[in-house]
Amino acid sequence: MTGEPTRIVVTGASGRMGEELIDAAGDRSDVLIVAAVSRTPGSVTAEAAVGTHLDATLADEDHVDAVVDFTAPEATAEYAAIAAEHGVAFVTGTTGLAGHEADPVTALDAASESVPVLHASNFSRGIATLRGAIREAAASLPGYDVEVTETHHDGKRDAPSGTALTLAEDIEAERSDLTERQHGREGEQPREPEEIGVHARRAGDVTGEHEVLFAGNRETVSLSHRAGDRGVFAEGALDAAVAVADREPGRYEFADLLRD
Amino acid sequence: MTGEPTRIVVTGASGRMGEELIDAAGDRSDVLIVAAVSRTPGSVTAEAAVGTHLDATLADEDHVDAVVDFTAPEATAEYAAIAAEHGVAFVTGTTGLAGHEADPVTALDAASESVPVLHASNFSRGIATLRGAIREAAASLPGYDVEVTETHHDGKRDAPSGTALTLAEDIEAERSDLTERQHGREGEQPREPEEIGVHARRAGDVTGEHEVLFAGNRETVSLSHRAGDRGVFAEGALDAAVAVADREPGRYEFADLLRD
Amino acid sequence: MTGEPTRIVVTGASGRMGEELIDAAGDRSDVLIVAAVSRTPGSVTAEAAVGTHLDATLADEDHVDAVVDFTAPEATAEYAAIAAEHGVAFVTGTTGLAGHEADPVTALDAASESVPVLHASNFSRGIATLRGAIREAAASLPGYDVEVTETHHDGKRDAPSGTALTLAEDIEAERSDLTERQHGREGEQPREPEEIGVHARRAGDVTGEHEVLFAGNRETVSLSHRAGDRGVFAEGALDAAVAVADREPGRYEFADLLRD
Amino acid sequence: MTGEPTRIVVTGASGRMGEELIDAAGDRSDVLIVAAVSRTPGSVTAEAAVGTHLDATLADEDHVDAVVDFTAPEATAEYAAIAAEHGVAFVTGTTGLAGHEADPVTALDAASESVPVLHASNFSRGIATLRGAIREAAASLPGYDVEVTETHHDGKRDAPSGTALTLAEDIEAERSDLTERQHGREGEQPREPEEIGVHARRAGDVTGEHEVLFAGNRETVSLSHRAGDRGVFAEGALDAAVAVADREPGRYEFADLLRD
Repeated sequence: MTGEPTRIVVTGASGRMGEELIDAAGDRSDVLIVAAVSRTPGSVTAEAAVGTHLDATLADEDHVDAVVDFTAPEATAEYAAIAAEHGVAFVTGTTGLAGHEADPVTALDAASESVPVLHASNFSRGIATLRGAIREAAASLPGYDVEVTETHHDGKRDAPSGTALTLAEDIEAERSDLTERQHGREGEQPREPEEIGVHARRAGDVTGEHEVLFAGNRETVSLSHRAGDRGVFAEGALDAAVAVADREPGRYEFADLLRD
Repeated sequence: MTGEPTRIVVTGASGRMGEELIDAAGDRSDVLIVAAVSRTPGSVTAEAAVGTHLDATLADEDHVDAVVDFTAPEATAEYAAIAAEHGVAFVTGTTGLAGHEADPVTALDAASESVPVLHASNFSRGIATLRGAIREAAASLPGYDVEVTETHHDGKRDAPSGTALTLAEDIEAERSDLTERQHGREGEQPREPEEIGVHARRAGDVTGEHEVLFAGNRETVSLSHRAGDRGVFAEGALDAAVAVADREPGRYEFADLLRD
Repeated sequence: MTGEPTRIVVTGASGRMGEELIDAAGDRSDVLIVAAVSRTPGSVTAEAAVGTHLDATLADEDHVDAVVDFTAPEATAEYAAIAAEHGVAFVTGTTGLAGHEADPVTALDAASESVPVLHASNFSRGIATLRGAIREAAASLPGYDVEVTETHHDGKRDAPSGTALTLAEDIEAERSDLTERQHGREGEQPREPEEIGVHARRAGDVTGEHEVLFAGNRETVSLSHRAGDRGVFAEGALDAAVAVADREPGRYEFADLLRD
Repeated sequence: MTGEPTRIVVTGASGRMGEELIDAAGDRSDVLIVAAVSRTPGSVTAEAAVGTHLDATLADEDHVDAVVDFTAPEATAEYAAIAAEHGVAFVTGTTGLAGHEADPVTALDAASESVPVLHASNFSRGIATLRGAIREAAASLPGYDVEVTETHHDGKRDAPSGTALTLAEDIEAERSDLTERQHGREGEQPREPEEIGVHARRAGDVTGEHEVLFAGNRETVSLSHRAGDRGVFAEGALDAAVAVADREPGRYEFADLLRD
């Protein structure tokens, strides 16, 4: 905090998260948006240079510490490689990477050989806390039924959310007996012991809510998180960029940074 | 309350609801279980005559005011006809009637020409209250997204619950723009304006919970009910039997009886 | 919507709700902020005339349809009288009016003899819906315990919220047996039948949540509302100004306007 | 499980928890209620010897492994001493011990010099899990506001619940900046940074619910537990008796036993 601000280039600058990042950075002294990249130029309101190509933008700028990227899998794969070429840390919150034909996961791994790389499906401190609580609960409540429910605004296109899938993976890592995800129930459909329910609700302007319900032995434990607005994710992504910019090359986890 | 107790025959007496009815009646002075019918004899703990055939049981008993039935669609169709033959009111909480091949709905209609008939998917005063609140909310929040979520114990075989379907029907009656029920979301699946989400969670020993979420215009309204135990339904079914026993032949609604 | 926009003067223009009103109006074609009044001039970002005295401002402007006021009880008493003198409708969301030494309630009544006056502790459609649902539930669940819980951001100074008090009044109007509000419990303190619990939680950045819990007979009914951000109240206040501007003099209720 | 059942004497056998213990034990093979002690004789339905004095009862019985006690502070102080004299493990769930004039805490400490002693304000596995989750969250969300809310049936006499107080202590142990418990808010009462809210709701037949809300940085984390019925506590107390019966003398924690 006491030294120079972390110098950041934002990609996807005209998207909803891009705007949030630029807004959030304006109120902080530990980060500086030195440039914004958008493929729909003219729509970005950053008081910073705006380019359409990340490569040219990184070449133009004197010094960049990190790229913060909320785009789409193809762009993320391409941008990770460009950031690595320029020796710039790469922080991304793009969802839907696993299994995508552009193979962004391999691109991130490759980039992490030369620069710090951090991918998270959710950049909130509260979600990181929730993940820790859920892993503990999954371990100490063996045999309990588990149902994950998430709620997001009605404009969200994919279901369940990337965060809900991460939570399900966390639970499955502790509970090897849970091997089948159930995304909805209709008709004669008794619950099987190996099921983990994962329900996606889409409603109004809800920013994002996740709940994990453990039930058994005549009791329930419910662990949940609610994001007030998207700003919380932007703040977390900038925190991550600050934390990771000076590290050794490699893959980093958001939750690990919080504990340092 | 001041006169003679309503004399009741319980069917499905060895089932879970049958047991609850016999338990609940034991603590009340306004009802008397004069006989219990079960096709698995020997398993019923009622301090009352226990038969295996409703027809014979009704013929044996001096005077019966009402049959209270929580069985299965085939049995309900058969029992409604028998009650009608004997001139005895018929109250049933059997679920899964609509569309069943035994055509229990027609049987109930036929019985209602000679005796009072009441069918409800849920006999709680709280659910009746919730239904009223939901209808009002659906009418006064046009354009809001609606998502129904229910949670029941992991032994429940059908999904969504009969009550959840009733709530969805109530909402659709007020909101003619909601024409498609969505029972789960997975993959690239944006919410369509005509959707109403209906989610079934199965978890532990949860007796029964229903929530209707209305979301839009940067706000949410959530209306919900939770049953503490099955006793609440037994009490309500006995209330219904008392209320309907002396009425004119016809079909009755549980919610209407509460307001009298 | 098809005619001229409703011409509005906003008071308390540098307050949080004043800013929300100006923001919200900027995106609507049915209202026009013709002037903003603030006693801390220079802090208002409206693209409109900004004055420090409502009297002078109303005298200066050609034509004003309504004053929308979120200030403090003294200012509201004074501004209501000024609006009435100028023949301009008065819509206010100021809280803490009842029992205040400046007697703003009498001032609103006096103003309503010459202009339309509307006061609401909450301008959301969802809250109006919730109030209807709560009144119905209170009437149809006699004898059930009632507990009101509200949650607001940690900067809110008064407790419970004006809306929570309104909900408690609504319930008490239906339930004459509930005569004592209980704002917290500590120590040996059994619940008395005449109690209605009213709990105020203060937490983080929560915009505003209200829940009414009805419990009895082994079941619970929970009716709740959550505001996503303050914008929902600004939109509702502008809706109210549009609806009330052309009416006869008198007192109006926000909930009534929604049904027209 | 494979050896002899743990032989238990239940005190407070005519109380609500006493009855639950006797019920629960009847369905288990790992415990055997060899005697029940009640000061209101005649009211106990145990199929076991029933005495009015613990001392005489322990003297009469051949072999007793543990006393399980849900009574009142005076009785607990006395019974702990008697159990210690007889060399029998003592498990108690009596609440309100701290600060009581009969000094039951000292009595438990004294007893623990010769026998295993376990006191818990809550015997559910879920609550033990919740406590772990809360401690983690309190540590990883510095500066967030914390509000504890509990809900219990309207017959509960003390507020807040013993479990809620335990949760508050857990949080305070991690968050030294939280030094003032706030049990209700009314009037002009802004939240102070050192406050931790502890709210007690009393409603209907609710068995027991506890929620801890962490709020800050535009997000909330909510961790909660709900007991379906009192049976969950009886099962846990019997689990504790089985686990502790053969241990060395000393004080034991319920949460620690679960992890073994």
